[in-house]
Amino acid sequence: MVNTQVKLHSSNTQRKYSGKDQVAAFPLGGIGTGNVSIGSRGELRDWEIFNRPGKRTIMPNTFFSIWVKQDGEEPIAKVLESRINPPHDLSHGYHPITGAGLPRMEKSTLLGEYPIARIDFTDSTLPLNVNMRTFTPFIPLNEKDSGIPGAVFNYSVRNSSDKPVNVTIAASMINPVGGVDYDQFGNLSLKNAGQNVNDIRKNKEFSGIYFHSKKFSENDLKYGNMSLVTTNKNITYKRSWLRGAWFDFLQEFWDDFVEDGQLNDLGYDTPSGDGQSDTASLGASEVILPGEEKEFQFILTWYFPNRLNGWGDQHRVKEEGREVTQNYYTNYFDSSWSVAEYLIDNKERLVRETLLFHDALFNSTLPDYVIDAVASNITNLRSTTCFWLKDGRFLGYEGCFDDWGCCDGTCTHVWNYAQTVAFLFPKLEQNMRQTEFLEEVNEDGKMNFRAVKMFDSEWIWHGGTAPAAADGQMGTIMRAYREWKFSGDDAFLKELWPSLKKTLNYALIQWDHDNDLVFDGEQHNTYDIEFYGPNPLTGIYFLGALRAGQEIASYLGEKDTEEKYQTVFEKSSKRLDELLWNGEFYIQRLEDVNQYKYQHGEGCLSDQMLGQQLAHLFGLGYLLPKEKVKSAVHSIYKYNFKENFEDHSNCQRTYVLNDEQGLLLCSWPNGGRPKLPFVYSDEVWTGIEYQVAVHLIYEGLIEEGLTIVKAVRDRHDGYRRNPWNEVECGNHYARSMASWGLLIALSGFEFDIPRGEISFNPRINEENFVSFWSTGRAWGTYEQKINKETGEVEPKVIVLYGDASGIKVNAGGKVIEL
Amino acid sequence: MVNTQVKLHSSNTQRKYSGKDQVAAFPLGGIGTGNVSIGSRGELRDWEIFNRPGKRTIMPNTFFSIWVKQDGEEPIAKVLESRINPPHDLSHGYHPITGAGLPRMEKSTLLGEYPIARIDFTDSTLPLNVNMRTFTPFIPLNEKDSGIPGAVFNYSVRNSSDKPVNVTIAASMINPVGGVDYDQFGNLSLKNAGQNVNDIRKNKEFSGIYFHSKKFSENDLKYGNMSLVTTNKNITYKRSWLRGAWFDFLQEFWDDFVEDGQLNDLGYDTPSGDGQSDTASLGASEVILPGEEKEFQFILTWYFPNRLNGWGDQHRVKEEGREVTQNYYTNYFDSSWSVAEYLIDNKERLVRETLLFHDALFNSTLPDYVIDAVASNITNLRSTTCFWLKDGRFLGYEGCFDDWGCCDGTCTHVWNYAQTVAFLFPKLEQNMRQTEFLEEVNEDGKMNFRAVKMFDSEWIWHGGTAPAAADGQMGTIMRAYREWKFSGDDAFLKELWPSLKKTLNYALIQWDHDNDLVFDGEQHNTYDIEFYGPNPLTGIYFLGALRAGQEIASYLGEKDTEEKYQTVFEKSSKRLDELLWNGEFYIQRLEDVNQYKYQHGEGCLSDQMLGQQLAHLFGLGYLLPKEKVKSAVHSIYKYNFKENFEDHSNCQRTYVLNDEQGLLLCSWPNGGRPKLPFVYSDEVWTGIEYQVAVHLIYEGLIEEGLTIVKAVRDRHDGYRRNPWNEVECGNHYARSMASWGLLIALSGFEFDIPRGEISFNPRINEENFVSFWSTGRAWGTYEQKINKETGEVEPKVIVLYGDASGIKVNAGGKVIEL
Repeated sequence: MVNTQVKLHSSNTQRKYSGKDQVAAFPLGGIGTGNVSIGSRGELRDWEIFNRPGKRTIMPNTFFSIWVKQDGEEPIAKVLESRINPPHDLSHGYHPITGAGLPRMEKSTLLGEYPIARIDFTDSTLPLNVNMRTFTPFIPLNEKDSGIPGAVFNYSVRNSSDKPVNVTIAASMINPVGGVDYDQFGNLSLKNAGQNVNDIRKNKEFSGIYFHSKKFSENDLKYGNMSLVTTNKNITYKRSWLRGAWFDFLQEFWDDFVEDGQLNDLGYDTPSGDGQSDTASLGASEVILPGEEKEFQFILTWYFPNRLNGWGDQHRVKEEGREVTQNYYTNYFDSSWSVAEYLIDNKERLVRETLLFHDALFNSTLPDYVIDAVASNITNLRSTTCFWLKDGRFLGYEGCFDDWGCCDGTCTHVWNYAQTVAFLFPKLEQNMRQTEFLEEVNEDGKMNFRAVKMFDSEWIWHGGTAPAAADGQMGTIMRAYREWKFSGDDAFLKELWPSLKKTLNYALIQWDHDNDLVFDGEQHNTYDIEFYGPNPLTGIYFLGALRAGQEIASYLGEKDTEEKYQTVFEKSSKRLDELLWNGEFYIQRLEDVNQYKYQHGEGCLSDQMLGQQLAHLFGLGYLLPKEKVKSAVHSIYKYNFKENFEDHSNCQRTYVLNDEQGLLLCSWPNGGRPKLPFVYSDEVWTGIEYQVAVHLIYEGLIEEGLTIVKAVRDRHDGYRRNPWNEVECGNHYARSMASWGLLIALSGFEFDIPRGEISFNPRINEENFVSFWSTGRAWGTYEQKINKETGEVEPKVIVLYGDASGIKVNAGGKVIEL
Repeated sequence: MVNTQVKLHSSNTQRKYSGKDQVAAFPLGGIGTGNVSIGSRGELRDWEIFNRPGKRTIMPNTFFSIWVKQDGEEPIAKVLESRINPPHDLSHGYHPITGAGLPRMEKSTLLGEYPIARIDFTDSTLPLNVNMRTFTPFIPLNEKDSGIPGAVFNYSVRNSSDKPVNVTIAASMINPVGGVDYDQFGNLSLKNAGQNVNDIRKNKEFSGIYFHSKKFSENDLKYGNMSLVTTNKNITYKRSWLRGAWFDFLQEFWDDFVEDGQLNDLGYDTPSGDGQSDTASLGASEVILPGEEKEFQFILTWYFPNRLNGWGDQHRVKEEGREVTQNYYTNYFDSSWSVAEYLIDNKERLVRETLLFHDALFNSTLPDYVIDAVASNITNLRSTTCFWLKDGRFLGYEGCFDDWGCCDGTCTHVWNYAQTVAFLFPKLEQNMRQTEFLEEVNEDGKMNFRAVKMFDSEWIWHGGTAPAAADGQMGTIMRAYREWKFSGDDAFLKELWPSLKKTLNYALIQWDHDNDLVFDGEQHNTYDIEFYGPNPLTGIYFLGALRAGQEIASYLGEKDTEEKYQTVFEKSSKRLDELLWNGEFYIQRLEDVNQYKYQHGEGCLSDQMLGQQLAHLFGLGYLLPKEKVKSAVHSIYKYNFKENFEDHSNCQRTYVLNDEQGLLLCSWPNGGRPKLPFVYSDEVWTGIEYQVAVHLIYEGLIEEGLTIVKAVRDRHDGYRRNPWNEVECGNHYARSMASWGLLIALSGFEFDIPRGEISFNPRINEENFVSFWSTGRAWGTYEQKINKETGEVEPKVIVLYGDASGIKVNAGGKVIEL
């Protein structure tokens, strides 16, 4: 064990990232709205609000700055970011549109507790302490209020001197409507911009700049607007920076700002010219007395309603007039200004409910890195990996390239691992099941493992119709069961049930060629290759799907079906165990492992027990003998967890290296490694690390599970990798949302909402347990103490949101009625 | 003074760079051949051999690897690079074509003394010490042998154990003919490749792989080939890695290599398919006894003869049949194989003469960072900033984007600062003067400051004919004088003289509107803007040009012309001094500095004395009163050198930041800063830092000069910036070749080859002085000691290369006849 028990169980505050942690970037933005991230230097980066990913993008001329003046002293102005990190090796230096040459704060520290981030700035030349808190409302079970296209930035400035200080904080931003592009020198080259207008607008509660354009019609893909507003009352602004040559734009703004902290509007009253846009600045000024603290609140909102009606160029609607679709947020908002109004009108509630969730999650007694793993991957569901269309359809790529989603179709075999959406926004997860079962199942029961029909498309694989994915299809059946159990939504269940049965019945026809009730045919799977012969991955998935089918049939009173699934399950489980057990774990049986390329054979596959892990999470029990399950999962840890990668030989893709730790997808402790083992076998994927960790916890191998989780999060240290972006085949990879299972497993949380029951059985810190829980109806915290005198468990269930009335809670041997 | 005198004068060995110095990249390759660089991890990077820049490029599947086996031990195989640096935040991990998942050496250290680099590898798991020396022949005055398209890699392996060890070192490389490109996943996507062939060839002295293609005709821009050979005798090879799916290619190679250090050729005898290429590996095997050291010598050569007949898309020959031209190296070689033959046949001499130069330069007693500044910027003349056409024409961009040259035309005002080519390969520098004076001077004497006529083009500026550059035109006259004085080439002088007079006579007509013999008109200059009114930059340049004209006229016996230039010089100098002297330095005189945008007015311009600096370097003496010159240069240091940039406000481009030091282009110590001062005024350019440092040294302000040089080189520390790439408006920026002037100034070197005289007058370390010198006829070292008893200077001139017979040397009050 690489970590001591004390270290593993400790529950400290979350890690902080210094400005030198170059890739730490905390995403803001709602569900289906896109993001902008705040970096550890306090900089805005990764602009992904234009309906496509935008990693590594900056927005020209866009930053916060502070002006400070005390009587008898020279004014000081700085960009509210800490200093730029090396390397400084651009072929033409930093361009003025980055403002890199302006003074910056000495240091910054980022604390990100999703969905809230805080940055503390320090600078010995200023008589002030400055910090900034930023967030986008996030309230589980409330999709709408978690899907607001905007973010709040609250700067708090405390006067640490003994003289009053005049302070202006200004936000500057280019009007990006029409798109931002550059020439080879890094100069702006806005081929589609023009007719851009930055208006000053004043409401009762706030005022600010409305960035729009007169160039695009409302259904143009480039149509949209942004608002940058403040609720502070004493404002100053410049609607447009100088329309000059060379670098005049920045010089004029900066000199104006430095002089007196007040901005002179230059009086331009015409829209920007063709191929041009304007930058606006909005400042708020306050006099702060010694010891006093004042707030400067800015709100940034965006409204880019139109997106390609499709996944991407390959799968999209090509019919004239239907090429464009809208984001869900257009159901509530008609402009970025209306978004700002909503945010400000409802701010008290939105803040309170967001904090309820934040506090429930982060006041947990679970280890800090577990909460970190659980919370940080929530970002994926609000990242560009997911999108949410006007008609309510919620969809997900696997992950994203820096500038486009990939791969298409809410891929069943990848999304199988993900738990976060299901446990926070079950309606959205149900929507994905509806797409899969109601639109993507063929007459014969084959489910297309990528959903592309809604965009008039078909998924093509190696030039032909794609096969069914054995793991994807079986796991999706299990997940439909989860959605029902979590929500108690019988109508949903009944709607899906005929299709669900078809997909389950398809399994034996398609994949069991020798009629022994164990899969052995060509089994396409999440490694993008086909397994042949009996193997634990797909075989155990099948067992889980059968158990789900059996439970549903029983609930619906379909006795025959229930018995059929039960019988097949029992035979299949017995046969699979006979075929694949090697005395320590389950292996793939093939006469010659090199007969087909890309098999695992006698290898110890990290995913061998994946179906069982899901069965645990969803309350389906053991699919194979308990002791063998435990032995298998323990073997995965024993053989596949590496404490060092310096001498690891991996000819595939590399996600972990050097002195890092991680869990391999496969290893061959008993030899038998194929010449060309399945692709990805020598890689490390966080989604698999999490599912194995969750499973280890279920089997009581707590230390082992936590060790894996800690390894993953240690790799994501802000310097090497972004803590809020676990990458696999793409940024914000859906599979990493397996981490939510840690919360479920460590709480011993079980749910049966159709029957009105939940239960807790903490597997860690039993004597002082606090953790978040959720169902489709309500969420809150579960607390448990052990009475030192009686030794009795004292459970406490707090409902923080939603309606949990009538739910019975089993915990600590007691039953609590909510 | 930020540095103590001891620190500044010390002459230590050169800096070393660890593998963590992420941007250190030492360029290999000859004049006009392009480069590939060796990074501090030992990796090959920045492939620029295909007639265009290629910063940040890698070559897929291309690396050296080592296999080690001792009796009774498991074999160990590693890539011969140290470990990959963070961040590891690619959206899809590291692709297998990077080999990132393979084991690597624990540490590496790069020592680069241009033109020779050495890397030491350490790895505690190997019973070996491994180092590698690499270079491309470089011999001043021998353009041909300094222009070989190839590089030598010598690995030395010492057995540090007490048992024999079997070692194979293998080099792997993809056949890149047709071009290397990628799909979005990072997979190879070779749209132009196909018919690629990797042949094994064996010569008497060497053997290796010849990488070519049957697809392209000899005049196709994509035509070319590469050779990877070894002079070791015991070789093993695989002409093509496995043509498989997924990542089979690397898996098969690596497994084959690891197994026994011997490679199995897979027997493919057909060229690669359409859109495909093959990777080949070549290994050399040795048994090394305890304590023994053995060499593994690899040579990489390339032959991509054809390049666009032009500077770029804007300026190129469009006439059918003439769109393509050839590199100079095609005069000597007809394939990469013939390059390898030449390198190996002449290796003894090429190594000896390269080492003569290297040792002459690096065994100097000048401070290490001075030698570093002088040597490291030699790279520019062999970088893609310069190119050399078959007909002998030598041309230079200002610098390069990562993937294209920019800007075009051997820009006179930028190249004015550069000294390196003139002092090492004067024939190439003369060629540039010939282009300028014989092709680019109009009837009226206007010189186009960008030479583009040779490619049937004209330089357009803001939509019209570009103006003459006042600084560029005057400096080029001075440089023509330098070329003649350095070479003694009277024919060259006489060829240029009529045109030179015309360009000088043009000056007063064009730029002196009030007939006071001082420039006051619209004066386009190196800041890409126009100065108006009398100013020191162009005014003093004019004085230098007049003095050059006067000297030449005198030599040629044109008495009238001599007297005319002398008279104008004297009047102009007096008038300029009256007009511009502010008591401390020279300023620009404008009634209202804001009347025109982009002036400097009362600012202290770092370039104010540039013409004087050139006059010193070229032996033209003082152009203005000596004490005022010294005061002005001292003011530049005093006002413009900043010891810290944390609170510097720069709205222009940023080259220096945070806690770094550097010399600003301008400052306004007495106020009067224009609202919009000339662009670039708040920036820092290494070329200007060097020319000011050189000038400070000439004026006896040695500490100040050295302080600037140290600041520049401290910024280029391998972690923040590449020591072998000083960037301004582009990589390998020509202006940075001003650094060669440090050698001239510190040696007090003067040259008058037409009269057969050179002299030395060291300005530093007079009691123990050793430094390199060169003329157009020969080069060597100058050594000087002071006899402790007599106090007399004991000078010693060593000729290492060329014919210096008949040259008289004045040094230490003595005259030496060579």
